[in-house]
Amino acid sequence: MPRPEILETFANPYSDRDYEIHMDCNEFTSLCPLGGIESDAEELAQLTGGAPDFGIIRITYVPAELCLELKSLKLYLWSFRNDGIFYERAVNRILDDLAAASKPKWMKVVGDFNLRGGIKSVITATYGAR
Amino acid sequence: MPRPEILETFANPYSDRDYEIHMDCNEFTSLCPLGGIESDAEELAQLTGGAPDFGIIRITYVPAELCLELKSLKLYLWSFRNDGIFYERAVNRILDDLAAASKPKWMKVVGDFNLRGGIKSVITATYGAR
Amino acid sequence: MPRPEILETFANPYSDRDYEIHMDCNEFTSLCPLGGIESDAEELAQLTGGAPDFGIIRITYVPAELCLELKSLKLYLWSFRNDGIFYERAVNRILDDLAAASKPKWMKVVGDFNLRGGIKSVITATYGAR
Amino acid sequence: MPRPEILETFANPYSDRDYEIHMDCNEFTSLCPLGGIESDAEELAQLTGGAPDFGIIRITYVPAELCLELKSLKLYLWSFRNDGIFYERAVNRILDDLAAASKPKWMKVVGDFNLRGGIKSVITATYGAR
Amino acid sequence: MPRPEILETFANPYSDRDYEIHMDCNEFTSLCPLGGIESDAEELAQLTGGAPDFGIIRITYVPAELCLELKSLKLYLWSFRNDGIFYERAVNRILDDLAAASKPKWMKVVGDFNLRGGIKSVITATYGAR
Amino acid sequence: MPRPEILETFANPYSDRDYEIHMDCNEFTSLCPLGGIESDAEELAQLTGGAPDFGIIRITYVPAELCLELKSLKLYLWSFRNDGIFYERAVNRILDDLAAASKPKWMKVVGDFNLRGGIKSVITATYGAR
Amino acid sequence: MPRPEILETFANPYSDRDYEIHMDCNEFTSLCPLGGIESDAEELAQLTGGAPDFGIIRITYVPAELCLELKSLKLYLWSFRNDGIFYERAVNRILDDLAAASKPKWMKVVGDFNLRGGIKSVITATYGAR
Amino acid sequence: MPRPEILETFANPYSDRDYEIHMDCNEFTSLCPLGGIESDAEELAQLTGGAPDFGIIRITYVPAELCLELKSLKLYLWSFRNDGIFYERAVNRILDDLAAASKPKWMKVVGDFNLRGGIKSVITATYGAR
Amino acid sequence: MPRPEILETFANPYSDRDYEIHMDCNEFTSLCPLGGIESDAEELAQLTGGAPDFGIIRITYVPAELCLELKSLKLYLWSFRNDGIFYERAVNRILDDLAAASKPKWMKVVGDFNLRGGIKSVITATYGAR
Amino acid sequence: MPRPEILETFANPYSDRDYEIHMDCNEFTSLCPLGGIESDAEELAQLTGGAPDFGIIRITYVPAELCLELKSLKLYLWSFRNDGIFYERAVNRILDDLAAASKPKWMKVVGDFNLRGGIKSVITATYGAR
Repeated sequence: MPRPEILETFANPYSDRDYEIHMDCNEFTSLCPLGGIESDAEELAQLTGGAPDFGIIRITYVPAELCLELKSLKLYLWSFRNDGIFYERAVNRILDDLAAASKPKWMKVVGDFNLRGGIKSVITATYGAR
Repeated sequence: MPRPEILETFANPYSDRDYEIHMDCNEFTSLCPLGGIESDAEELAQLTGGAPDFGIIRITYVPAELCLELKSLKLYLWSFRNDGIFYERAVNRILDDLAAASKPKWMKVVGDFNLRGGIKSVITATYGAR
Repeated sequence: MPRPEILETFANPYSDRDYEIHMDCNEFTSLCPLGGIESDAEELAQLTGGAPDFGIIRITYVPAELCLELKSLKLYLWSFRNDGIFYERAVNRILDDLAAASKPKWMKVVGDFNLRGGIKSVITATYGAR
Repeated sequence: MPRPEILETFANPYSDRDYEIHMDCNEFTSLCPLGGIESDAEELAQLTGGAPDFGIIRITYVPAELCLELKSLKLYLWSFRNDGIFYERAVNRILDDLAAASKPKWMKVVGDFNLRGGIKSVITATYGAR
Repeated sequence: MPRPEILETFANPYSDRDYEIHMDCNEFTSLCPLGGIESDAEELAQLTGGAPDFGIIRITYVPAELCLELKSLKLYLWSFRNDGIFYERAVNRILDDLAAASKPKWMKVVGDFNLRGGIKSVITATYGAR
Repeated sequence: MPRPEILETFANPYSDRDYEIHMDCNEFTSLCPLGGIESDAEELAQLTGGAPDFGIIRITYVPAELCLELKSLKLYLWSFRNDGIFYERAVNRILDDLAAASKPKWMKVVGDFNLRGGIKSVITATYGAR
Repeated sequence: MPRPEILETFANPYSDRDYEIHMDCNEFTSLCPLGGIESDAEELAQLTGGAPDFGIIRITYVPAELCLELKSLKLYLWSFRNDGIFYERAVNRILDDLAAASKPKWMKVVGDFNLRGGIKSVITATYGAR
Repeated sequence: MPRPEILETFANPYSDRDYEIHMDCNEFTSLCPLGGIESDAEELAQLTGGAPDFGIIRITYVPAELCLELKSLKLYLWSFRNDGIFYERAVNRILDDLAAASKPKWMKVVGDFNLRGGIKSVITATYGAR
Repeated sequence: MPRPEILETFANPYSDRDYEIHMDCNEFTSLCPLGGIESDAEELAQLTGGAPDFGIIRITYVPAELCLELKSLKLYLWSFRNDGIFYERAVNRILDDLAAASKPKWMKVVGDFNLRGGIKSVITATYGAR
Repeated sequence: MPRPEILETFANPYSDRDYEIHMDCNEFTSLCPLGGIESDAEELAQLTGGAPDFGIIRITYVPAELCLELKSLKLYLWSFRNDGIFYERAVNRILDDLAAASKPKWMKVVGDFNLRGGIKSVITATYGAR
């Protein structure tokens, strides 16, 4: 289960200037949900051949008062490791959780997922206007 | 024969937000039509030296109420495997079929085909306004 | 001598939609003109050390009623093989010939030529407004 | 069904010198066999989601009296397009067929297949000693 | 816990010829063991910041009577997903398990792991003589 | 401690024309601050395992009356070598120092930092309007 | 000493159409000036360790009535070989000389210089409006 | 017609030491022979669609008393421009001509040809023992 | 000062099999010694413009009874950060220290250093016979 | 004129161990000799269009008692800047000069020169046996 409560922030040290923070999190992994059910899919996956998903989560934002703390962000992304979740939902969920925690002026989350069945998927969602 | 009836969709889990879904389908193959006739070209190809075509189909869309289901999309693209079809027609046909099935706010289909006779072709067609 | 009369077209199968066709022709070759004279430079080149030119011709267009037929395009480009012609003239000439044959809504021709004397040249010409 | 009878050869023009011929055939495709049965898997694949396989066939040989004719080699490789065949069998079968047709001094066939389920396979088989 | 009992094999279809099978498994992940204890490290990792490990497992072998079945190999490698295990042990353990299951003439396993703390590790172990 | 007093400038030799100067400084290194304290972190880092940070500082500006002198810029960037400083602060600090020294019409500083814990960070800050 | 008098032009063969000419001159070299004095630095450089500079000069322009002749452009750029000149001055000087010789509608000159002391410099200057 | 009589040599300036000279000639072009007839194929090619061939000729040799002069080598390779010749014959012919002209201790010629019909060919022939 | 006393080892978990461990340490930095004196060069460097050195240390070994512990290896390499040391001495010193700590069957250390004054250096030293 | 008297050496700090030093000198430039005369070709080149040559000099050696000092090596290579010299002579000359200065156990010099007239040259010469 994604654990947004892990996310920590710190005061933006240059809050009087709009600037951009970009992070590529190269080792995101979750599980492909089975039967559309978003639950702990680990045991089922090993029995049935459901595929773990791998990808890169790319986050870009313009901070307002708060910056995302990197270590807690890493822990938050690890909390997807044993969840079954669709790409579309994962990317929008991450955007919602990060925006709720850091209240940025603008934020974009891109999920750049590895090839599955010969198809590569990239999902892009945005919060706020630039 | 392309089989659009294979295409399946699911309800967009975040339909209140405009976001973008991009898919690269790396292993598209069809047959080069002979004499301009769009029919089953397999037997002719083996006798006459007509060339199979290979390429990447790149799909980008902003979903409205429906998302394209990946496995059915893969099966739909496989259904071109033994058809003779021109590049221009294939790309526009795929756009028509995917847009009819998923009724997106906006969609783009790019056919990025392998070298033939020293010429690489890329066809781009768009549905709706962004 | 360039032979535009070789060019063939076929009816645009989706003429009610504006879409884009791009072609990279990777193996264009002509001869460097000697003394600025645009004529058959082959014999002179072998005697004097004039350099054959190599490059990629990149063509992009939005078709109106007609599409360029690929095989005839290939033959047309081969017809420069033994002509002496400057880069600037070659690219504009190709644009003129292709636009005359296919009457597109918009067309761009790029000549992306190999290094000569440590200098790489890229010439870009456009027909119509987008 | 693979059709080795399509393969043609021509007399090695320099048979008094050992030299090497290498060919990369970039667009090999076959079907993944279902239930281990090596038969026409096309219909089943479309119904069940069996995956077409894609890869590069790399051939290297030292000709004796005969060289493989390229166009017939291309047609021979196309004849796997609608067959269900395992990687291991495909590579060894191609080696057997090509060696039988051209009787080389030495030959190597490599099947360099695309990612399937996150796994890339490369099979290498050799005929004769170098 | 690694589950070698998942591994399946099939009869080598060309057992009279020595040939080589190579597989790159691009999405291997396990957990970094904590305190040197090789156990289920998942819960600890989330609390303490222990790092999941990611890498590519490269397997090369010359089959004797048996070939490794790909889908079962994939499931076997997935079974490391929630185990805490050192690189050196993981690679040697995979070699032992695969060699026990398929009894090859020769086998090599390479663990090509992602950067950790600015250091990239590659472990190579071999079974039998070539 | 960053030492902006090292920075030197010279008179812009073409101050009547707006032009752009871009510099990539490939070997920036500082220390990761411990406990959020921005002080000399060297000794602590060696005892506790705190990580040195590495990255590229990319500077782009349109000079007004002054240009930044390269050698002094290099010395200025070296002065971060043994300081503990957060990414966000380092990039904004460099922008402040360089803008104060050279009073450009416009300036952008990008900190493109190496992977830390599987996450790559890129910070971009801008001074003035273009 | 730069020798703009070497530059030659020829009549633009398609002056009724705006098109773009781009040239990358990959082997530009000059000498780093010593003590800020722009003079023949060759002898000094060999005695003191002053560094030759290397880079790529990228030229893009829309010709009006005249095109730059390539061979004379090459000779002109060679004329910087033994001069001591700063990057900023070199790029603006080249732009001035080329614009004076060819009177283009628009021109851009980019000096893309090799790493010096761990810093890569790129200078961009423009003439006219596009 | 290949013209080996163009080839010139100069005295090896370091003939008392075995050293190696390697040249990549990136712009080799000839014509694909029609009907197996090795003759001037130019006119036929333009009428029938026979394909020009493009490739890289890679030459490596250890000179004895003579070195190949580069400009004459370039002219010699240009002399294939309008000949119809098979890959196998071209590579062996070039090796014969260059070895006859320069009498090297050892020589290798590689013809690394562009994709034709989805197949890339590389031919390697050697003269003398190393 | 390099601090070999930081290095830790652990018992080789598969000591009955010869296998290879390779590590690329991408972020090695030291200081260029001034006047050939190997001492703390930090202060001098900042005053005089002496250059910090950056590079990759590549370590390969076949363990006997002991394996190098990664975290301590990282700390050991950090201990060069503020020392002035020549490339040749650094690589041989690292080899001596690592071999003394881990007593491997064979070990190789490569120092792959960044460009300095247009020259890239790579130093390779080996311990024991393979 | 090449100036070998510039070359300096220092005592090999680890002379009891055979190890390898490799250097890539990326910015070598000389002048193409005119009429085969090896003299100062600068003035002629500017008048006639003779081409400056650019390339990479790659040096590998196993030191005996002496190591080559980098800064003096750089100055030595700069001393070719305004000389007309053939590739073959330049590489062998550099090998002779460096071997005379440093008396290595083994040395290799590679001259990897830029494209000239569509031909890339690489010359390799070796001193001593490995």
